Amino acid sequence: MYDLNKFQSKVTTIRKEIDSQLKLVLSKELPQTLYDPMRYMMSAGGKRLRPILLLLACEATGGNFKNGLDAAVAVELLHNFTLIHDDVMDQDDTRRGSPTVHKKWNVNVAILAGDGLIALSYKYLLRSNYHDLSRLGSLFSNTLLEVCEGQAYDKEFESKEDVLLPDYFKMVRKKTASLLSMCAETGGILGGGNEETITALRSFGLNLGIAFQIQDDLLDVMEEQEHTGKTWGSDIRHKKKTMLLIHARNEASSSDREVIEEILAKPNLDTQDVLVIKNVFRKAGTLSLSSQILDKHFNIARISLNKIKNTDGRMALEQYLESVINRTN
Amino acid sequence: MYDLNKFQSKVTTIRKEIDSQLKLVLSKELPQTLYDPMRYMMSAGGKRLRPILLLLACEATGGNFKNGLDAAVAVELLHNFTLIHDDVMDQDDTRRGSPTVHKKWNVNVAILAGDGLIALSYKYLLRSNYHDLSRLGSLFSNTLLEVCEGQAYDKEFESKEDVLLPDYFKMVRKKTASLLSMCAETGGILGGGNEETITALRSFGLNLGIAFQIQDDLLDVMEEQEHTGKTWGSDIRHKKKTMLLIHARNEASSSDREVIEEILAKPNLDTQDVLVIKNVFRKAGTLSLSSQILDKHFNIARISLNKIKNTDGRMALEQYLESVINRTN
Repeated sequence: MYDLNKFQSKVTTIRKEIDSQLKLVLSKELPQTLYDPMRYMMSAGGKRLRPILLLLACEATGGNFKNGLDAAVAVELLHNFTLIHDDVMDQDDTRRGSPTVHKKWNVNVAILAGDGLIALSYKYLLRSNYHDLSRLGSLFSNTLLEVCEGQAYDKEFESKEDVLLPDYFKMVRKKTASLLSMCAETGGILGGGNEETITALRSFGLNLGIAFQIQDDLLDVMEEQEHTGKTWGSDIRHKKKTMLLIHARNEASSSDREVIEEILAKPNLDTQDVLVIKNVFRKAGTLSLSSQILDKHFNIARISLNKIKNTDGRMALEQYLESVINRTN
Repeated sequence: MYDLNKFQSKVTTIRKEIDSQLKLVLSKELPQTLYDPMRYMMSAGGKRLRPILLLLACEATGGNFKNGLDAAVAVELLHNFTLIHDDVMDQDDTRRGSPTVHKKWNVNVAILAGDGLIALSYKYLLRSNYHDLSRLGSLFSNTLLEVCEGQAYDKEFESKEDVLLPDYFKMVRKKTASLLSMCAETGGILGGGNEETITALRSFGLNLGIAFQIQDDLLDVMEEQEHTGKTWGSDIRHKKKTMLLIHARNEASSSDREVIEEILAKPNLDTQDVLVIKNVFRKAGTLSLSSQILDKHFNIARISLNKIKNTDGRMALEQYLESVINRTN
């Protein structure tokens, strides 16, 4: 049996190393309007889920996590770029309980800080002379492009009335899951895994990512502001085309569908509206179906790990998966 | 004597090749709100100065330009990313006589189209498995970061009253010259040039870039709308801290300086204001000094080419330099 303490101390070591690398990356001072917001964003206390996944995948395929650090730093920088630009596009004022970059400074500063994080992220990925650099760089770039495509779909959905679940899943694969998939795959390449193992890791990351997003959609109606740093029901208030809303709009009884449409037609939604819609989610079987699909993807992720021969490495990724499954924010 | 027709037909061949590559790069259709604006931007008729420089430098160091095409496509995509995001930040409504991306669509679309161009640009740079990929990728990434720094300084200058010429030159080196320098250097690396030649090419691009920006500043007060697709005197109207304005504010007679400050204090400037300021530029020696500095950098660029052994390649770069010197827009 794999020791949970061993997993936790490994993750703590990795997280510390990533945070100290990120401090180095952002030690430059000038121009202030570029480096201050980048530093602000990177020190706002993210969970570092993506670089940790990359480094655990690197160790699970026989590598030492220290060899993957540059790539791990790169994916964390890239992830934070997406957060800054997404917040601008979504006009979100807070993230992790603090003002977003465009709110603390302005939109121009946020655009440029995001651009700067992309530059830094490639700088770290490419400086290492990894022997598979063309493969790693192409994977990284295709992922960045997919993330942009996913965000474009997400924004398109806002003004589209007939979004269906397959559209949603295409968007989620690109916007959220592709980055987690790339992290696991990159770790596998850096660790020297064989192609079968790398494919398994890619599938692990992809399914984890899809589940992760559905979980986000569910947590929004389950949890309170204290836990998430987001407002409870904020997706509903923003009329976001989540898996929940898409399903309920298509599958609820016709009277319940009318209730939803009436509420969505209002300019501003209050707590009562959120409660009513949440109740429709329950009646339409939306919540239970979402939980089932969530479980299905977590299970595919779990099964993917069977391809990994290294017992300790596999178990660390299993623990990692459990920690995501059990998250409350 | 190098044949001018030979140069022109080489450039025509290169430009055609780049344009047909760019068409391939952007053949994807969906999501429409990502690919339409990217395609719109890339087909708006740029001069392709940067990829041409890269490929001429590649040939001048003994390479075949076809081997550098991926990198050339990459720099053109990267350049167009900077244009889209800069137009958002500067709230410019037209470029090359057409609506800017954020004007034709909206700011969100422009942010994402810029991000997508960065992704595509790295995709093309990294897919080739160039044997110096870590060196090329690091140079590319450091340049992107410098361009962001330059843009940050440029935006900071807008609200800073005491900008001096050294500040201006630092900004121009980063924002404009670093990209041209990187193009020449990348071409030299890809062509297999020795380190001395690569250094000379870097200096060629850097000095060309600095001169290019001063030329832009000068053309703004010299040329008419028909030539540039920009409004005549638009830098003055926007109170941009160009070399001209910075110099005149520091060096004009105290009465002329008062005239400038009075005009700049107005919310909107008209043609008469532009003419008055242009007259101060002349009286303060601003126009002649700028022309001198412009010539100095063009000369350093020209002299840098002496390090290039390949006669045809050197002469092609000389012709290229002349075509930039003689540009009217």
